[in-house]
Amino acid sequence: MKRLGILISGRGSNFEAIAGNVASGALPAEIAVVISNRTDARGLETALSRGLNAVCLPSKGLDREVYDRRLAAELHKHDVDLVCLAGFMRLLSAGFIREFPERILNIHPSLLPAFPGLDAQHQALAHGVKITGCTVHFVDEDLDAGPIVIQAAVPVRDDDTEETLSERILKQEHRIYSEAIGIVIAGKYRIDGRRVIFT
Amino acid sequence: MKRLGILISGRGSNFEAIAGNVASGALPAEIAVVISNRTDARGLETALSRGLNAVCLPSKGLDREVYDRRLAAELHKHDVDLVCLAGFMRLLSAGFIREFPERILNIHPSLLPAFPGLDAQHQALAHGVKITGCTVHFVDEDLDAGPIVIQAAVPVRDDDTEETLSERILKQEHRIYSEAIGIVIAGKYRIDGRRVIFT
Repeated sequence: MKRLGILISGRGSNFEAIAGNVASGALPAEIAVVISNRTDARGLETALSRGLNAVCLPSKGLDREVYDRRLAAELHKHDVDLVCLAGFMRLLSAGFIREFPERILNIHPSLLPAFPGLDAQHQALAHGVKITGCTVHFVDEDLDAGPIVIQAAVPVRDDDTEETLSERILKQEHRIYSEAIGIVIAGKYRIDGRRVIFT
Repeated sequence: MKRLGILISGRGSNFEAIAGNVASGALPAEIAVVISNRTDARGLETALSRGLNAVCLPSKGLDREVYDRRLAAELHKHDVDLVCLAGFMRLLSAGFIREFPERILNIHPSLLPAFPGLDAQHQALAHGVKITGCTVHFVDEDLDAGPIVIQAAVPVRDDDTEETLSERILKQEHRIYSEAIGIVIAGKYRIDGRRVIFT
């Protein structure tokens, strides 16, 4: 069984969806550890209530390199095969990314390369797109820019607010993140240039 | 009946789709004139064979402002209400765009704002997106950037080439362009910031 390390900063609703799929057997993996960089992340309680290892590793005031070394050490300690960012609100250093080559996934609430960065749903509404969505991608040294594993399209409605749009996107996030993790841990892909080809 | 002016540079397959919908009555409009900036545009023959006004207005060697004044004059001569770009391979000057405020539509083979400019399908494949599509938008002074009327999503397959992907996108282009024209000529929308809201 491949071992997942899940990084959160808040509620971690994607973590909850992954945990549900692991518990049901739909995702054949083990959650080795859930790590939050914030002490008040609600996802930590969820992890504990599910009997998972939950670690709080506060990042406040720490230098990025120093923090990332601690984070990597914690993940290695739990023998993590794949790192899954689930609303982890920090940029990772190049050193951290080199430590887990092709072994860090992120989910982003837009059809990348459109609307990278913060407030993707707000960006989508302000730009007036009629279709947005979400993207699971490998993490590389650029923001929201690594090779794309899965995307899902979501319609934008005329009466959408950030909340209603975010909710509609989140449903798809919960579906595709587990699907992408399944493909990656099974090794059922190869990377050709920027393209992730399923094998 | 609102009068359409269609601008082409080549085959104009979107023009053909629009002409089909006009002929069948699905799109309640009239094609006032088809104008090509290239003498060898195959769409001109199609227009003639359909009994439409077909005008060749060669752009080669002409200054943009000069050309665009002639183009605007030709469109006004045919009393055009809405200008539809259908594979028209020229940038339009600010003067031309001001001449037809909120009255120029374009179709682009990507989910804008992703992959503006040339070879959008190639860009999408090279970037490794799993979903792309097409966009009908109002034309403003920036390239492929005006308010979006309709978009359609199209999956990218692992074995896609530029040709197979372009073909899949084109099917959706043919559907949404007529739909967008119908909405715009019926005035069933308002623009709020960058958002086109249907009314």
